[in-house]
Amino acid sequence: MASERPASGEDTLIARYFKPLATDAGAFGLDDDAAVLTPRSGEEIVVTTDAIVAGVHFLNDDPPDTVARKALRVNLSDLAAKGAEPAGFVMTLALQRADDVWLGAFARALGEDAASFGCPLLGGDTVSTPGPLSVSITAFGRLPVGTMVHRSGARPGDRVVVTGTIGDAVLGLDILKGGGVAEALAGDRASRDVLVARYRIPQPRNALAKAVRDFASAAMDVSDGLAGDLAKLCAASGVSALIDIPSIPTSAVSAKLLSQGETTIEALVAGGDDYEILCSVGEAHLDAFAAEAERTGVALTSIGTIIAGRHIPRFLDTQGAEVEFKRLSYSHF
Amino acid sequence: MASERPASGEDTLIARYFKPLATDAGAFGLDDDAAVLTPRSGEEIVVTTDAIVAGVHFLNDDPPDTVARKALRVNLSDLAAKGAEPAGFVMTLALQRADDVWLGAFARALGEDAASFGCPLLGGDTVSTPGPLSVSITAFGRLPVGTMVHRSGARPGDRVVVTGTIGDAVLGLDILKGGGVAEALAGDRASRDVLVARYRIPQPRNALAKAVRDFASAAMDVSDGLAGDLAKLCAASGVSALIDIPSIPTSAVSAKLLSQGETTIEALVAGGDDYEILCSVGEAHLDAFAAEAERTGVALTSIGTIIAGRHIPRFLDTQGAEVEFKRLSYSHF
Repeated sequence: MASERPASGEDTLIARYFKPLATDAGAFGLDDDAAVLTPRSGEEIVVTTDAIVAGVHFLNDDPPDTVARKALRVNLSDLAAKGAEPAGFVMTLALQRADDVWLGAFARALGEDAASFGCPLLGGDTVSTPGPLSVSITAFGRLPVGTMVHRSGARPGDRVVVTGTIGDAVLGLDILKGGGVAEALAGDRASRDVLVARYRIPQPRNALAKAVRDFASAAMDVSDGLAGDLAKLCAASGVSALIDIPSIPTSAVSAKLLSQGETTIEALVAGGDDYEILCSVGEAHLDAFAAEAERTGVALTSIGTIIAGRHIPRFLDTQGAEVEFKRLSYSHF
Repeated sequence: MASERPASGEDTLIARYFKPLATDAGAFGLDDDAAVLTPRSGEEIVVTTDAIVAGVHFLNDDPPDTVARKALRVNLSDLAAKGAEPAGFVMTLALQRADDVWLGAFARALGEDAASFGCPLLGGDTVSTPGPLSVSITAFGRLPVGTMVHRSGARPGDRVVVTGTIGDAVLGLDILKGGGVAEALAGDRASRDVLVARYRIPQPRNALAKAVRDFASAAMDVSDGLAGDLAKLCAASGVSALIDIPSIPTSAVSAKLLSQGETTIEALVAGGDDYEILCSVGEAHLDAFAAEAERTGVALTSIGTIIAGRHIPRFLDTQGAEVEFKRLSYSHF
């Protein structure tokens, strides 16, 4: 009816599900075509963008709440690794159709994460696609001018440090795909759930952002696999590294699977989806960094040393012998 | 080989095609996980995000150079309508496979547009997808703090003004789909090319951004259709409008098709993909705005008046009779 206000499906969808998330003044309640980021004195804005696609970065039948959390958290993880405090995000959601149950659960979880990480929705675009569902997020962080932590600052003698545990997510993915890990843990639902949760819901280490900024010489998040990501950090810094395999932090269940031969160290360090922080820290800063990690409740493990050279990082076993990996990380192409 | 630097397909692709576009210092040559936007004193940053999906926003066989230009320009158009000067963009490119010929042409055109509009690539994410190709861009603009032009500032008595011509793009799409317009223009390739180009390559009005900021009381770009977008602007402003249909600017070929009954005014104003600026301008600013438009070579046409009320805008024919439209704009859902 021409006398009524027009409300397209897209507008209704945005108003119903996403307007409640637009709590920042700069989002203008999602009623405008753009948002505004107002810089604070002495700060600059860090920008990162990461997309997740159904069937590629998450599984087609993953629950909507975990899809939402993963989409935002993979970006929050980048902000943490760069030493930035979350400031907000914009999102492009590409959907085949608007399913109210799915969208309700998705938006609710996204709103919860946005609130708990202090990263409000600033704007977005909702488009139809004949293809798989995808969520592309651009996230913004704040930090004092010139303090972003780069990949390129690692220096020989720095320790190589990693948060949390490595390799759980790839085992979780194996379970979801019905692989060997699912079989090995057939009688242990609790362990399966732990690993699956690690794949579906990353735990970005934003609590440690300031410590990364204050103490790390170089940092990035582990998204494609520890081995490959460390190689990238070393390449950007013009250095190499020696990694002590037994020091690589693994969860209890991953360690058990390793000891039983149900997985390999290569699978864990080349698997990706960890969303932990990998960084280099000068010896002088190591204690202060560890203290801050303990204060914020984030596990921190020193796994090796940055050395001079251009060789890709060497991973050494208990005997000090190099273990060569066929594959370093996940790549899309 | 373990002794070589790892270079995943994704990294190679980014280095080959997109690194040359990362000309801004804040992009860090795409070698890092994030970019930095450094605010200038007294300015804030406008953020807008728009995605285009093959088969939805462009056709599967559209040339890669026009896909690139459209992806960036639909975002530049939002910046122009908000009164912001382009500052840079990040992009998520979702591809089924890495095709060198396609990517080369895409990146070349994207680089040309980034340079000519002063909007450098700051970062991005390249992901594989089993679905249609899509390009999601988040663009950044700068403007003095508090000067972003909103949808909500239109006041009764303001003139309704639009740039360029309306309706060409939807006719171009009809031609590409082999519709009635293609038949009507069967012997007139030049006209077909004009309309197709209007669909494939928007002409965002960034030259007019400062004038919009200085003179418009409300503004948005016309992306989903003039009728629907004007209704949104009026709704956000709490006003209505009277539009004089004969004043709506059309290209020579569109006007001819209209006069021949090969298309309708409803098709032109509800079709979308125009990427012109629609704004309201107080009577006192109209001459100055027109002068600035003339100086920058952008056509500007006054098509009606903002009035009090909550009714959707009324479109009046030469006799002053209201023409009611069944459809106001394109909607995804």
